[in-house]
Amino acid sequence: AGHRIAVIGGDGIGPEVIDQAIRAAEAAAKKHDRAELSWNKLPWSTAFYKQTGRMLPADGWDTLAEHDAILFGAVGDPSVPDKITVHELLLPMRRKFDQYVNLRPAYLFAGVPCPLVGKKPGAIDMLVYRENTEGEYAPIGGQLYPQTADEVAIQTSVFTRRGCERILRAAFDAARKRPRKLLTSITKSNALVYGMGLWDHAFEAVRKDYPDVKSNSLLVDACAMDFVRKPEAFDVVVASNLFGDILTDLSAAVTGSIGLASSANVNPTKKFPSMFEPVHGSAPDIAGKGIANPLAAVLSAALMLDHLTLASSADAVRAAVATVLAAGAVKTPDLGGTATTTQMGDAVVAAIG
Amino acid sequence: AGHRIAVIGGDGIGPEVIDQAIRAAEAAAKKHDRAELSWNKLPWSTAFYKQTGRMLPADGWDTLAEHDAILFGAVGDPSVPDKITVHELLLPMRRKFDQYVNLRPAYLFAGVPCPLVGKKPGAIDMLVYRENTEGEYAPIGGQLYPQTADEVAIQTSVFTRRGCERILRAAFDAARKRPRKLLTSITKSNALVYGMGLWDHAFEAVRKDYPDVKSNSLLVDACAMDFVRKPEAFDVVVASNLFGDILTDLSAAVTGSIGLASSANVNPTKKFPSMFEPVHGSAPDIAGKGIANPLAAVLSAALMLDHLTLASSADAVRAAVATVLAAGAVKTPDLGGTATTTQMGDAVVAAIG
Ligand SMILES: CC(C)[C@H](C(=O)O)[C@@H](O)C(=O)O
Ligand SMILES: CC(C)[C@H](C(=O)O)[C@@H](O)C(=O)O
Repeated sequence: AGHRIAVIGGDGIGPEVIDQAIRAAEAAAKKHDRAELSWNKLPWSTAFYKQTGRMLPADGWDTLAEHDAILFGAVGDPSVPDKITVHELLLPMRRKFDQYVNLRPAYLFAGVPCPLVGKKPGAIDMLVYRENTEGEYAPIGGQLYPQTADEVAIQTSVFTRRGCERILRAAFDAARKRPRKLLTSITKSNALVYGMGLWDHAFEAVRKDYPDVKSNSLLVDACAMDFVRKPEAFDVVVASNLFGDILTDLSAAVTGSIGLASSANVNPTKKFPSMFEPVHGSAPDIAGKGIANPLAAVLSAALMLDHLTLASSADAVRAAVATVLAAGAVKTPDLGGTATTTQMGDAVVAAIG
Repeated sequence: AGHRIAVIGGDGIGPEVIDQAIRAAEAAAKKHDRAELSWNKLPWSTAFYKQTGRMLPADGWDTLAEHDAILFGAVGDPSVPDKITVHELLLPMRRKFDQYVNLRPAYLFAGVPCPLVGKKPGAIDMLVYRENTEGEYAPIGGQLYPQTADEVAIQTSVFTRRGCERILRAAFDAARKRPRKLLTSITKSNALVYGMGLWDHAFEAVRKDYPDVKSNSLLVDACAMDFVRKPEAFDVVVASNLFGDILTDLSAAVTGSIGLASSANVNPTKKFPSMFEPVHGSAPDIAGKGIANPLAAVLSAALMLDHLTLASSADAVRAAVATVLAAGAVKTPDLGGTATTTQMGDAVVAAIG
């Protein structure tokens, strides 16, 4: 019956870019792996919430669990608090389906203008492994006397040895397979002694099992600086939930556009489906104009094809994206051109052949 | 009796750069404000800790409290845990002396190579106001079953309405006095709903008192991206303790060198002394070589002169730094030259005249 994929286009530019990702994945899977992909489009979004009072139906999680993967656009709309849109769909999904690996590659493609002086195509080539289920994003805390002059809020990060070790192992496993075999663990234990202290303990324990990987530890503030000063020095980077969030927007910026930043939210055990989403979010300011860059979604679909063990298809999608970008004839506004979302999708499908 | 300044050179390059800062401040204060500065050099550092078992004497805080300002180099040494060096001197000082405003300017000087494509001197000109006493740096949390497979750590951020409002007001007051009158409040309340939610409440309340300032709210991840994409869009930025830490290393990177990043840790009530320190830290890798850039310390001393209401002297120091950088004849290695710390100090003193 092929691979069953749940599709949540969501809000804003989400559905626009996901449509192009589907086209690219279909074309590649058919040609390179003779694989059948079935797409189950689910209308869960802010609009759905406004109609039903829920971001997804009561049996929504069960529905999703029946799929082999989830292709996700974005959620978030100015008319509804993030506490609903993000906190009732995106963040619980990462936890419920134990998608503890958030993989976010950053690569400087030929044809993409780099905001940094003197960087050659391919010079920046890193994989960021972001912890995706705990740490700073633990939904723990509260507000006392909210909205008064006496208001006090606590926000508690919870780190577990198991949670940190498993993301570190995923990152080390990836580093081991790459030519440079470098890994940088991001910390801030000089200030956040308890939480990041545990992270460091886990790092020291796990690195012993990877003597073939050159690993070191770097403070998050220094890392932010080095992503600008010498991004080419990084290979695999592993970071907590919050630090991974900040650093991957930065890695997207230095590689030219958030419109190219893809991500995989992976449950490596495959007990629950993994989810693949562009990093950019719903971008309400450009939604509905048909000018969003679909390549972040297309590259996220490539990560999905990897996960479905359709490696040839995944590589074909990435090669097509590289070809289109290098040719430079078709560019969305974020890349300095005037192409539409669909034209960019057309170009990728044509390049897949 | 003039202005009594406590000097803590501290570790690594701290004492080297502070010596040049003292020379520059002396020269300017004498010439422009006929002011006398007295320097009380205190040996508190990792070496002091190794001799005495403490980072500072039992009456150290009382000693500091007798001064009008504190000029601080850096603490931190690979041979002693940060839990001691940083947590028994730097971080408690910020809290004990209620230095709740951490002001960190970022300016692209003429003559300084910018890592970003196409930025003209002066194009980047921002003041970051970092909350300095609470939030993510609250020393609250712990580790259960440390160093075992069952280890769990909690790290609790505590935000108070009072604490957030006062740093926001300091930032709005600064924005009001600048030509562009722009303020950006950094948040992450889409994920950290409790703590950053309080921050947003405080922002919404305080901004009502500043109708003349154009203010908006930006997610920390988007801000990290925009510091690379369009740093010229920022004027005054106000952020929590942790976000301010990360963003100011980034603002230092995009303005050319952490060797130029100055900071003021201010208690605006003047009930306790304020403290002035370069952002760069002890940099053990280059300590003792005499090649550290002293300009971050020199510019921190300028912020100290501002605080001591020696505005002409402060301006003279900044003008001298700008002159030396623009001339480009004397450059430390971080700026692409071969000058020593002392040569750079000489050049500044000469420019003060
Ligand atoms: C030394 C460290 C704890 C400190 C901080 O995080 O505040 C430093 O990075 C800074 O920016 O002053
Ligand atoms: C929408 C938001 C909560 C989310 C996050 O912070 O994880 C987003 O920024 C991301 O990077 O996926």
